[in-house]
Amino acid sequence: MTNTSPRLPSAAVVREVGLRDGLQSIATILPTEQKREWIAAAHAAGQREIEVGSFVPARLLPQLADTAELVAYARTFPDLFVSVLVPNLRGAENAIAAEVDLMIVPLSASHQHSLANLRKTPDEVVAEVARIRAARDAAGSKTLIEGGVGTAFGCTLQGQVEKSEVLRLMQALLDAGADRVSLADTVGYADPAMVRELFEAAMEIAGERFWCGHFHDTRGLGLANVYAALEVGVRRFDACLAGIGGCPHAPGASGNVSTEDLAYMLGSMGIATGIDIDALLALRQRVARWLAGETLHGAVWQAGLPKTFAAPAARPAIAA
Amino acid sequence: MTNTSPRLPSAAVVREVGLRDGLQSIATILPTEQKREWIAAAHAAGQREIEVGSFVPARLLPQLADTAELVAYARTFPDLFVSVLVPNLRGAENAIAAEVDLMIVPLSASHQHSLANLRKTPDEVVAEVARIRAARDAAGSKTLIEGGVGTAFGCTLQGQVEKSEVLRLMQALLDAGADRVSLADTVGYADPAMVRELFEAAMEIAGERFWCGHFHDTRGLGLANVYAALEVGVRRFDACLAGIGGCPHAPGASGNVSTEDLAYMLGSMGIATGIDIDALLALRQRVARWLAGETLHGAVWQAGLPKTFAAPAARPAIAA
Repeated sequence: MTNTSPRLPSAAVVREVGLRDGLQSIATILPTEQKREWIAAAHAAGQREIEVGSFVPARLLPQLADTAELVAYARTFPDLFVSVLVPNLRGAENAIAAEVDLMIVPLSASHQHSLANLRKTPDEVVAEVARIRAARDAAGSKTLIEGGVGTAFGCTLQGQVEKSEVLRLMQALLDAGADRVSLADTVGYADPAMVRELFEAAMEIAGERFWCGHFHDTRGLGLANVYAALEVGVRRFDACLAGIGGCPHAPGASGNVSTEDLAYMLGSMGIATGIDIDALLALRQRVARWLAGETLHGAVWQAGLPKTFAAPAARPAIAA
Repeated sequence: MTNTSPRLPSAAVVREVGLRDGLQSIATILPTEQKREWIAAAHAAGQREIEVGSFVPARLLPQLADTAELVAYARTFPDLFVSVLVPNLRGAENAIAAEVDLMIVPLSASHQHSLANLRKTPDEVVAEVARIRAARDAAGSKTLIEGGVGTAFGCTLQGQVEKSEVLRLMQALLDAGADRVSLADTVGYADPAMVRELFEAAMEIAGERFWCGHFHDTRGLGLANVYAALEVGVRRFDACLAGIGGCPHAPGASGNVSTEDLAYMLGSMGIATGIDIDALLALRQRVARWLAGETLHGAVWQAGLPKTFAAPAARPAIAA
């Protein structure tokens, strides 16, 4: 159908994070060659933003040890916006050297989760972002810095995470020099009402610097949460092909929102993503073979597209 | 969290249709005794509206041959609102005799689907509803008549179903004497933007006589569609425990919205359903044993409730 709702955008970006958030959460270590195939096929299917890995020590995440090589490969596609995750200044220096377009610094709004995962308080992460900003500017680099506020809707360790604390940390990231900020429902605690409330407040604070919504489908609400975020103006969403990744604490439970289902929902609503869903489903089949034995997710690959489905033609410009 | 959005209701009804829409779509024939246990446990978990079966010839749907017995049993719970599906006047006469609270007459807005499924055109179904209304009134019965407009968002046979045709048939059902009307996305073609548009128009036509939204999760959008319908004022939703039923044309694909995930989403948003989700999940375990070998769905049963989850206390009144 055509997009008749004035509240919905004409275009949105689906950022593929399967190669990072997806692969880091599963046991299979995908060979670099297959990751290159994945990047090339995702690009051919119309994806223009891909998080290709993480600059962390290989001993911590052997799945992502080839990140530098993948950045170099991804940069051979001139219209591909390449991002990586960096946990600290050292990772950021690698990202700057690799000339990625954007580096995501994760911050956990849950103090307990932050200490357990990053061994830093949230405010220590903010201080690190200030150092990263200084290093980026000193290097004359164009790499953008995204501060990603995780456990924004609660946390499996600490439970409640206050909205005011999430927003305080987001403001602190902006003040420390983050070019972009994002919100992530790391553990799948969000519902559409929470999303609407928090994202509305976040976008008031960050304006054009608000960048991305990151939702997990742990309790089946991933796409409902995306829709709620769309309604308050969010225009970019993280997703993993086949819904991989996410929640090591709930075996078998869904991980990230699946790229193909998200692209279907957006396309069905008349929101252009530039993604060819049939090509994406063909890629999903290949990735599913590579990840044989892993639990995959998603619905459209099983049910097929509706007979009535017609994707919007236009491709959104990447406003980075 | 508390419900802070002025657009969302303080209460909603989850109508269990697993015993009808769910069981009629799967191979296992559940013994009457287990169906009685299901009804009793669903009631104990706080469900107050259950579609217990369908008055169709047993040779067509042997799974539902015990509908009269189940109605009699369900009516022993004084605060349970008992419904059945009836395809025609004959079924309606049985429903009236059984003194159900409400009988649902399905109408398919897709002419092709209507002919293939019901061997009647949609307008012939409207005429049947007029006969059902006459019979109900002649009998002095209090059984309500709900006209359920299916394939409201498209159809696997015919493809496109025009919105104007859906609304015309809804108006015709009201004119023919249906006390209530509903909309169903029978094949899982709806997206939240379509839902918003069609349900908004339908509620303008039907007002207080608009009754229920029926969504399938075939392509992963079931709960996103529920949320979109909630935003335009829909207050009652069909659901099947464990997401059974739905789409025989897409093996393995999800069926109806799952009761437990829907109850979780509503409860998380501060919308009272009266449902005790832990009790519902315990019932799901029993039903899963009874239906061993069938493909079940849903997310919350795997992931568990969030540490932060607190269901609203109040139970909605049943405004029938």
